[in-house]
Amino acid sequence: MRVEHASWTSLLVKASLCISGILLATSVSAENITGFDKASTQTQRQLEAQFDQSINPAEQDVWLRKFSQKPHHVGSAAGKVIAEEVADLMKGWGYDTEIEKYEILLPTPKERLLQLVSPNQYTASLSEVSLAEDASTAEQTELLPPYNAFSTDGDVEGELVFINYGRPEDHALLERYGVSLKGKIAIAKYGKSWRGIKPKLAAEKGAIGTIIYSDPADDGYVVGDTYPEGPYKHETGVQRGSVMDMPTYPGDVLTPGVGATKNAKRLKRKNASTITKIPVLPISYKDAQPLLAAMGGATVPREWAGGLPITYHLGPGPAKVRLKLAFNWDMVTAYNVIARWEGSTYPNEWVIRGNHHDGWNHGAADPLSGMVALLAEAKAIAQLAKMGSPPARTIIYGVWDAEEPGLIGSTEWAEDNATDLKKHAVAYLNTDGNSRGFLSMGGSHTLEKFFNQVAADVDDPQTNVSLKKRLKARLAINGNKRQQAETRERSDVRLYPLGSGSDYTPFLQHLGIASANLAFSGEGNGGSYHTLYDTYEHFTRWRDPGLAYGEALARVAGRATLRLANAPQLPFEFVAFADNVALYIQELENLIEKMREETRVQNVQLDEGIFELALDPTKSLKAPTRQAEVPHLNFAPLKNSLARLQVTAEKYNRTIGNNTLSAKDQMKVNQMLYLTERKLTRPQGLTGRSWYKHHIYAPGFYTGYGVKTIPGVREAIEIRKFDEAGKQVTIAAEVLDSLTQQIQAILKLTAT
Amino acid sequence: MRVEHASWTSLLVKASLCISGILLATSVSAENITGFDKASTQTQRQLEAQFDQSINPAEQDVWLRKFSQKPHHVGSAAGKVIAEEVADLMKGWGYDTEIEKYEILLPTPKERLLQLVSPNQYTASLSEVSLAEDASTAEQTELLPPYNAFSTDGDVEGELVFINYGRPEDHALLERYGVSLKGKIAIAKYGKSWRGIKPKLAAEKGAIGTIIYSDPADDGYVVGDTYPEGPYKHETGVQRGSVMDMPTYPGDVLTPGVGATKNAKRLKRKNASTITKIPVLPISYKDAQPLLAAMGGATVPREWAGGLPITYHLGPGPAKVRLKLAFNWDMVTAYNVIARWEGSTYPNEWVIRGNHHDGWNHGAADPLSGMVALLAEAKAIAQLAKMGSPPARTIIYGVWDAEEPGLIGSTEWAEDNATDLKKHAVAYLNTDGNSRGFLSMGGSHTLEKFFNQVAADVDDPQTNVSLKKRLKARLAINGNKRQQAETRERSDVRLYPLGSGSDYTPFLQHLGIASANLAFSGEGNGGSYHTLYDTYEHFTRWRDPGLAYGEALARVAGRATLRLANAPQLPFEFVAFADNVALYIQELENLIEKMREETRVQNVQLDEGIFELALDPTKSLKAPTRQAEVPHLNFAPLKNSLARLQVTAEKYNRTIGNNTLSAKDQMKVNQMLYLTERKLTRPQGLTGRSWYKHHIYAPGFYTGYGVKTIPGVREAIEIRKFDEAGKQVTIAAEVLDSLTQQIQAILKLTAT
Repeated sequence: MRVEHASWTSLLVKASLCISGILLATSVSAENITGFDKASTQTQRQLEAQFDQSINPAEQDVWLRKFSQKPHHVGSAAGKVIAEEVADLMKGWGYDTEIEKYEILLPTPKERLLQLVSPNQYTASLSEVSLAEDASTAEQTELLPPYNAFSTDGDVEGELVFINYGRPEDHALLERYGVSLKGKIAIAKYGKSWRGIKPKLAAEKGAIGTIIYSDPADDGYVVGDTYPEGPYKHETGVQRGSVMDMPTYPGDVLTPGVGATKNAKRLKRKNASTITKIPVLPISYKDAQPLLAAMGGATVPREWAGGLPITYHLGPGPAKVRLKLAFNWDMVTAYNVIARWEGSTYPNEWVIRGNHHDGWNHGAADPLSGMVALLAEAKAIAQLAKMGSPPARTIIYGVWDAEEPGLIGSTEWAEDNATDLKKHAVAYLNTDGNSRGFLSMGGSHTLEKFFNQVAADVDDPQTNVSLKKRLKARLAINGNKRQQAETRERSDVRLYPLGSGSDYTPFLQHLGIASANLAFSGEGNGGSYHTLYDTYEHFTRWRDPGLAYGEALARVAGRATLRLANAPQLPFEFVAFADNVALYIQELENLIEKMREETRVQNVQLDEGIFELALDPTKSLKAPTRQAEVPHLNFAPLKNSLARLQVTAEKYNRTIGNNTLSAKDQMKVNQMLYLTERKLTRPQGLTGRSWYKHHIYAPGFYTGYGVKTIPGVREAIEIRKFDEAGKQVTIAAEVLDSLTQQIQAILKLTAT
Repeated sequence: MRVEHASWTSLLVKASLCISGILLATSVSAENITGFDKASTQTQRQLEAQFDQSINPAEQDVWLRKFSQKPHHVGSAAGKVIAEEVADLMKGWGYDTEIEKYEILLPTPKERLLQLVSPNQYTASLSEVSLAEDASTAEQTELLPPYNAFSTDGDVEGELVFINYGRPEDHALLERYGVSLKGKIAIAKYGKSWRGIKPKLAAEKGAIGTIIYSDPADDGYVVGDTYPEGPYKHETGVQRGSVMDMPTYPGDVLTPGVGATKNAKRLKRKNASTITKIPVLPISYKDAQPLLAAMGGATVPREWAGGLPITYHLGPGPAKVRLKLAFNWDMVTAYNVIARWEGSTYPNEWVIRGNHHDGWNHGAADPLSGMVALLAEAKAIAQLAKMGSPPARTIIYGVWDAEEPGLIGSTEWAEDNATDLKKHAVAYLNTDGNSRGFLSMGGSHTLEKFFNQVAADVDDPQTNVSLKKRLKARLAINGNKRQQAETRERSDVRLYPLGSGSDYTPFLQHLGIASANLAFSGEGNGGSYHTLYDTYEHFTRWRDPGLAYGEALARVAGRATLRLANAPQLPFEFVAFADNVALYIQELENLIEKMREETRVQNVQLDEGIFELALDPTKSLKAPTRQAEVPHLNFAPLKNSLARLQVTAEKYNRTIGNNTLSAKDQMKVNQMLYLTERKLTRPQGLTGRSWYKHHIYAPGFYTGYGVKTIPGVREAIEIRKFDEAGKQVTIAAEVLDSLTQQIQAILKLTAT
């Protein structure tokens, strides 16, 4: 149902009377909020102070406890119950709430077998033990055992080859060792690259199966005490996770590009290109040790050695394993909770705020720690609305299902509602897991100034300085050289560019909706991710005791939502965007320059035969393969486009607030502003993966979650397709020009 | 006995007749050997070809097998036998051979006890197991069990504190964690700094005892397969070694500065400042694991974690240990074998060539692999002499005893013969352990050009290119940035500057005799160093199969010895010396600049309180302590002196070979040339450690073996005594001026 309400501007004046005491107690900036004038800044700040008062960590704790009682993956009865309970809460607070359903393909394990068959025998347990210290771990109703979703079925037997993290550079080094994956089973460490990349690349190299394990050097006893003595990975803990080829397209594997509604046209499973080509299974380090210990061949390079008390070898063999996997390829229903509060002034401008609700297990950290913060915000915003301060724009909460197997709930909804979203969506703001630590802000750089202001207006619960100040302190002490320098040279903290890994992907990269992802992180580390041990007990002891950062997240994300909903002029800003693009272009120039120099030097060294002299002739590591020389690339088109954008962006900033626009023109300006992000997309998408439309941000085709900025150019350079890179420079330049033209059009309107 | 012989010049002509075929088979440089003219170059090359023919790796293998049959430390019956057998060999080949004896203090273990007393109990085995695969390990006659020589006696009990490698920077970090060593027992990893530094610094910080263990991440299973499957450290292997405070003075602890002859004046033991202040014991990683596993306190920084399958903690405690050590403080006899071949032309100019014979155990690698190469050279040189090509200068072989406990045999002999050595010694050339790999050349930079020529004239046994070429290939591929660049920009490879760790120290740093240290290394790694497993079996399987590099070492060191002995004009060269000093001065300037900038930034950060914001408030790591600002230092005196030296050195190079000197003047020039290194010393020595006289090279007072170039200045900067650093700049400038004046005096002579 929709609630009737007056416009937000009039009611905020009333609110200001009763909360002035709170305002005095908080140190807020004297400057205007971006997109607000002096008067509306004041009322907005009063609204935010009132909002803060409604955020109660104890309530988040109750929800966290309740929703994390049982495993609740998509397709489970418990998952459906959570969706219904979330919907009931939202409805109760006054949101127009629906559960929107999609029918999706979800493989679950039917058979899992991993055996070392020679030179000795070992059968992997493939199970995680319950702990007396953590009652939740005994609650295993509907528990999915450790597996990688969207592994293909298979029954293979072969010698093991250790591939480190399974990244392109790891395969390059393996080749120098003369170790082939053809007909072998790869064993890879979790980490450094997204898990789905590991079997994808291994299969390309000829492997017939892939095992992925969590090495104790990465999140086990090497890093710190293990659960339950500490937060790090229990010896039997296994990271579940999807290995769907999300860098090609995420979401339901059978319905790329369209919503997986009941009657949607579906691919046949055998034609779904995002299912792996070879069987993949995740295991614990306890199960990995006997396999690794049985391996021979060359000793791994020192940097590849992990934390098990053995010598790591590359193989192949003599360890031979059998890997047998069979899945139930069932259609299940994903339950997205969609809760709307219609905007009082601009009902057709939508601010979308999302977090998923499905977990691989109990999912206390992932996703519930973020979800309970979202609930707290939603409740507080509804209270404000009911007290007479409804949002000016429509706020839509999306509580997604089926994120874990492949961002499925959000992707299907985004695809299903693509036309409306492209027209109406102002921005998408995502959260997911949360923990104690520092504010981590990623997103569209047109919102960089905006989020910096938000971060300056919320205090860190541990140090009582603003989140921005604490984050800058961290960058000053622990950042890389550039980041350290920028803490002095640059007022704002850069947003990190978004790759993939959570539900912002369909909004940002498929639809071109300006997006952000917010979380706290850095002080609640551990090894519970996607294991049986991601429980309420683990979370509240090790990750965010008292949910102090749940409260902070609600304050940050809620404030951002409210500002986006209420700003008289939308807070997009292009100088910071251009500044980040300038950095990315510089990175591209440095990248190709470095490749050229390294290739040149290496080819000279190969000509001179000095690798043969420098390498130990009794070892198998050989000289690298010769690479074609790297040409110079013409970056001028891109830099000229950037220069035009910079000038235009500066001009836009100078005009803000100088003009009084009619309500109609202001609305037109706002619409043109939120459509700026669409200009960064092209309908034909990226080469080889047309689902991805954005030309500034994409997940790496060979890194997975890791972002590739200006991906067309960057990835062409990385795979040494320099002609293609040259073409992509022109395309990227056109994309920037398209944004520049949009800003120029806005300037024309505001100049009238 | 001394052999009668004609002068080398006449006889070499004869030699050339019979070995011309060999010359054709080898690719030798067309340029003159430094110090030789065209004619004498030719005869010298012929002599060297003949020399090479006499080097037989099979013979070295026989000696290695024989001398490594039993443990043979100083004071053992087996050690005395080796000295006698070496003396017999030398005598048999025609050398004037003496066993020169010194009476030295040697502590050996009487009682060793290490117990974990709480929270659980464990008694360390403190022993190494014999292996069926290695018969030598069962031969334990006179075996010294694992201990650190010159640990003081003690019986202490206290909580453990983990100090990583026990370096100054490790203690600085421990202080930031608020962990005090007062009244605690430190447990340190072997490696990164010399072992004696670990208890020295720990004691300064208030520790009452120190345990040192070899972590498997450094030379155990993490690095490669362990013995006997591979070369790396067996789980019970313990690195013995001296912890005498050698950076203060090496040699017999009771007779600093004088030879430990029977009637020498001796300190009382309690006044010997180089005995540790607290008890120290080395243990295996097998014994270390229960101790480390019982520790609590903060988790160590990630970089401190080792390779045991546990979480490492800093402590203090709760693990509490009792460490009880008592030693037999016995006087033993060190047997140096001194074998001389009097020079035919310049008998009063001495070329000294040394390698020790005592080992901690069987000592196959350390020191016998170097010693058998020395024997091969000595035999070949004697053969040449007996065939009519005796050395022009006197060659003295020193086969030292008691190197392991503290360079005692060589130091006592050098101190005992100081007056003669200062007058007559041309150079000291050292070897010690050897293995397969790359030529490692350290030494006085006045010999850099000389050793580069030697390395260019000997082929690598594996790749059949010159040793220099292979070394440059390694630097090009695996060197640091400067080294990589220099492989193209600089014709010669830099000698590494000598710190300490073998018998060159008394010659170079106490007496100012130009010295060098030669070895092959880099492809024969392992974990046998100073353990029971340094056996013939280990060495010939893993470190230098077939002793191919024993042969190469004999060729290199023998060639260097012959050239130094025969060069008409001694091959000292000063442009390379000045070039290296220029590098060191640049390092000093960079060092203080870096300290200044880091201090400045850190003090600003401390003023701003941003450490408190950046650090996790629930963890014990706190902000660093404020440091006084770093002043600018006046390097001009040193740089002006360097400039004068550079001009003079260039001038010297231009004059070489342009003058025909009388035999008498040539002798005078040569004497002045080899006295150049003396000019780099000052009688009063370094501040706080007057035994060390050299002002360009010294072992680090807080790093041990690691060299500190221009040590007066560098160490003053490092410990932030900037006034003292300023004074040391002037002293270093004077030292360089003194060398410049000596070269100018030579120029005056050659200009006549």
